[in-house]
Amino acid sequence: MALDNEQQLAETVHELANLITTGQDDLFMNRFTALHDFEKGQVYAALPENIREVAWRVMDDETLATIFDNLEIDPEEIVGLLEEMPEQKGADILVAMFADNEADLLQAMPAKKVANYLALMPADEVKEIKRLIKYEDDTAGSLMATEYLAVKRSEKVKDVLRQVKKQAEEAESIIYVYVIDDENHLIGVVSLRDLLTHPDDMAIDSITNTRVISVSADSDQQDVAQVVADYNFFSIPVIDADKHLLGIITVDDIVDVIDEEAVEDYSGLAAVDVSDTDDSAWHSAIKRIPWLLTLLVLGLASTALIGMFEHTIRQAPILAAFITIIAGTAGNAGTQSLALAIRHFGNGSDQSGWKNLFSEFISALVLSIIGGAVLALVTMLWQGNDGLALAVGLSLALSILASSLLAHLVPALLNRLNIDPAVINGPLVATVCDWASILIYFSIATAMLSGFVGK
Amino acid sequence: MALDNEQQLAETVHELANLITTGQDDLFMNRFTALHDFEKGQVYAALPENIREVAWRVMDDETLATIFDNLEIDPEEIVGLLEEMPEQKGADILVAMFADNEADLLQAMPAKKVANYLALMPADEVKEIKRLIKYEDDTAGSLMATEYLAVKRSEKVKDVLRQVKKQAEEAESIIYVYVIDDENHLIGVVSLRDLLTHPDDMAIDSITNTRVISVSADSDQQDVAQVVADYNFFSIPVIDADKHLLGIITVDDIVDVIDEEAVEDYSGLAAVDVSDTDDSAWHSAIKRIPWLLTLLVLGLASTALIGMFEHTIRQAPILAAFITIIAGTAGNAGTQSLALAIRHFGNGSDQSGWKNLFSEFISALVLSIIGGAVLALVTMLWQGNDGLALAVGLSLALSILASSLLAHLVPALLNRLNIDPAVINGPLVATVCDWASILIYFSIATAMLSGFVGK
Repeated sequence: MALDNEQQLAETVHELANLITTGQDDLFMNRFTALHDFEKGQVYAALPENIREVAWRVMDDETLATIFDNLEIDPEEIVGLLEEMPEQKGADILVAMFADNEADLLQAMPAKKVANYLALMPADEVKEIKRLIKYEDDTAGSLMATEYLAVKRSEKVKDVLRQVKKQAEEAESIIYVYVIDDENHLIGVVSLRDLLTHPDDMAIDSITNTRVISVSADSDQQDVAQVVADYNFFSIPVIDADKHLLGIITVDDIVDVIDEEAVEDYSGLAAVDVSDTDDSAWHSAIKRIPWLLTLLVLGLASTALIGMFEHTIRQAPILAAFITIIAGTAGNAGTQSLALAIRHFGNGSDQSGWKNLFSEFISALVLSIIGGAVLALVTMLWQGNDGLALAVGLSLALSILASSLLAHLVPALLNRLNIDPAVINGPLVATVCDWASILIYFSIATAMLSGFVGK
Repeated sequence: MALDNEQQLAETVHELANLITTGQDDLFMNRFTALHDFEKGQVYAALPENIREVAWRVMDDETLATIFDNLEIDPEEIVGLLEEMPEQKGADILVAMFADNEADLLQAMPAKKVANYLALMPADEVKEIKRLIKYEDDTAGSLMATEYLAVKRSEKVKDVLRQVKKQAEEAESIIYVYVIDDENHLIGVVSLRDLLTHPDDMAIDSITNTRVISVSADSDQQDVAQVVADYNFFSIPVIDADKHLLGIITVDDIVDVIDEEAVEDYSGLAAVDVSDTDDSAWHSAIKRIPWLLTLLVLGLASTALIGMFEHTIRQAPILAAFITIIAGTAGNAGTQSLALAIRHFGNGSDQSGWKNLFSEFISALVLSIIGGAVLALVTMLWQGNDGLALAVGLSLALSILASSLLAHLVPALLNRLNIDPAVINGPLVATVCDWASILIYFSIATAMLSGFVGK
């Protein structure tokens, strides 16, 4: 039913392109306008460039603004589409767009281009958009739209309903109406539901919920998403330090934030950026190389560490067979601890760090005892050498313990320093766990060598 | 402003508990009702059990239903709270809850308990809830609420607005009104915005959007989330195979789905369940043990493989030093490929599998040539042995190539078989990559042994 597969999209694009080619502009506009807003964006971006060249001439600024508001592609690509038009047309479309999307596009342009577009906009629009652009990425300010409905507490239900009807086309969300005082301080919220279910002559004051939940413009977008998800809000107001109402963030933007933050955590764990799966093979390889080479260089330290124990290995070559299982299992335990720690600290949990460390220690201790016992038992049965079994079992247990604590402490430390622990990636931690495991393993094996060589 | 930190919550709970203890029930209800719905759930669950015992007696079924609708904890824990009351009271609350939440709770109970509650409910409620319970987890049917507003196309704007006002309290979302025919087939949608901005006497027919996007009850929840996220909908209708309207899914449930699916992918990559970070240390260890032991046992195969080449290692102990870097780097490349593949196939992308395989091959080839060259160069400078440098460089290159392709092909194959590739986890793939790397490395080293031993 949706244009949710490539074939349906291709057919629609083909059909619409044909209407343009054969000069049936009115029919094209009829068919195009019947599409959902998201589909308008999909189709517009998929039209051949020479057809699009005609299409935007046929459309008014409002239709084009709707298209540009609903394009779910990289801002850079959207800017590319905008630049297919004369600068004045582009500026007009930017002005007609929702302010948050307009700001996103301007932020994706080089400064010179931004200046060109701003020079072609009305002065009050320039002032507002400059205010929005200054908010840092990933903050509430960068997400908020400035198209919202705010009314005074003394107004009547019927008057507010009239404003809702008037502004319905422009405001991004009319599910909540915000109540402000004369200095634009946010003092409450009224839901459209309440407006519809109360008498026309009632004062807004008496149905205003003054326990309005808001976020400040510099809040982290992840915290905003958490509040909206918990409270099941359709939108949330954004205020400044003096509680002035600045804008609103709607739930559709929150959906994007949750997706984006999840991709970030996930990419970190795999040391690869998965945010764009449509990349070409060449780009994909290029993007993976830096981390892979970094890890390779760090891995060379493991090689050097094992090389230091060449003498031990010469006396007991069987020791080499246990390197991957000890380093690998410790690395797995470390990755688990890291994943738990990133989620834990990333969720803004403010529990006592010491309590968590103790939990992690107990949990790692149980894991290490069981893991070590299993490996010792299997080695005993396989090699029939109790000295060797003891050495590898002990090494595995200590390696799991060290790796788990390491992978917990590093994100805990970063969290304490107010750095998002998601910057550490899984393979990096696994590499550091490798170092620890190798040192532990060969130190123990060297010390216990006489206990199993020649048996 | 929100009860978003534990201290604020604790203070509110303490204050409210005091009102109960001192018999000020009315003041308690006043203060409690002023809370946001989400906070009501937070506070209720946090009250001491003996206070809660009094609290639910003070509240009516509607208030309790709101609390239970908004508890953001495990269904099992919510069931526990419900069981603190007599069964008839519990059944009444279940009936007063939104149908989707009611179904979730019943699904979290043992069959015998479900039968007890159903026996205490009105017959028509039992019929509806039995219909909902039968939908599989993770499908649109299991997410949908049956409280929605549907009208006939012949009705007038003013009549529909009257119904909106009447049902505003009960329906989960009144942002869209769905238009149906006499047999309950979904034929269109009208937004509240349209209702408010069109003349009272206009027929619904003339403002109905018949290009309504819907999902079928057995759709995967991930696909539903994608449509809602793309189209920026506040809710989406659910239909059966004959296009009968069954229910709606609201965006707040979609927010939870996106979060849940992301956690699933992420947990898979780390081989640990991160969905509940509040677990005790003991539970946390228990949950991590099965995978860690599985990986340990699979890792023993690597040990056996290396053991087979004990003779080679005896002749050139330095070979042991390169095991971790070759297996580790190949494992990292494999994890990257896996992460990309899971996102790619998980997103329901239906591009040609062959094209992706070719892209992955080119990308892996570039990575393997660069990686192999770097390791060969470093080894040459470090050990001054060109035979050894060639052997380890070649081994690393082939290992990266094999691991990348393996980690791409397995999810591709699962996707072809209609299995969600997220079931494979990162460490499992890394272990299989270990096997491939070890075989490649020691086969090459054994074959080229005469080229570097004794040099």
